[in-house]
Amino acid sequence: MHRSRVYALLIDTPEAEAARAAEFWSAALGVSTRPVPAEPQFIGLHEALPGLVTAVQAVDDAPRYHLDIETDDVPAETARLLALGATEVSQWLECRILRAPGGHLLCVLPVESPPEVFAAQARTWS
Amino acid sequence: MHRSRVYALLIDTPEAEAARAAEFWSAALGVSTRPVPAEPQFIGLHEALPGLVTAVQAVDDAPRYHLDIETDDVPAETARLLALGATEVSQWLECRILRAPGGHLLCVLPVESPPEVFAAQARTWS
Repeated sequence: MHRSRVYALLIDTPEAEAARAAEFWSAALGVSTRPVPAEPQFIGLHEALPGLVTAVQAVDDAPRYHLDIETDDVPAETARLLALGATEVSQWLECRILRAPGGHLLCVLPVESPPEVFAAQARTWS
Repeated sequence: MHRSRVYALLIDTPEAEAARAAEFWSAALGVSTRPVPAEPQFIGLHEALPGLVTAVQAVDDAPRYHLDIETDDVPAETARLLALGATEVSQWLECRILRAPGGHLLCVLPVESPPEVFAAQARTWS
């Protein structure tokens, strides 16, 4: 038995345009930006969407959005999603990057939310 | 003065794979699907994300996610986003399709939420 929930919507942006994109989204949604000191590729968009972390991420790739799913058991959650038809694209640190049927990216990562948020909102899979 | 809020996250999927994608996302997120009778290109994912409508949309294009912004004044909201650096891609019925700096799609559309949800959650722009 393990648990998971959708944690974040990432606005992946080619590195050269990431600062400009963060400025746009901040003004467009009326929220402040929050640099993440230890992870300079992320620029947080504070409370841009209800209950979801939202951030611009500088990437060395084409622009795309992706969803992050946090879980208390990354291998089990990855196996569950693969069994549902996703395919594995790559691994990055502790994160597993998957492609859903239809072509969309999603990442599976260890719990990032405060424990009480995860406890209250995650779904349980058996 | 006008108002707007983020209304929906759309999982745009090539038409041939849309049904399979909806099945995946429904199982992956543990939510039910809701066909939209008048708009067969949409398959709703009921309460998949807090406070955001979430749906798979069959499109004649590459897979992508996009955000919908609902507003009580489509021309004013479009003008606001263009002034912030977005560019206009196309128009579809009453919706204006824009590309944000960095390359991401967003759509501006008339209010779709119940009036009390829009009244409580939309931001005001002057």
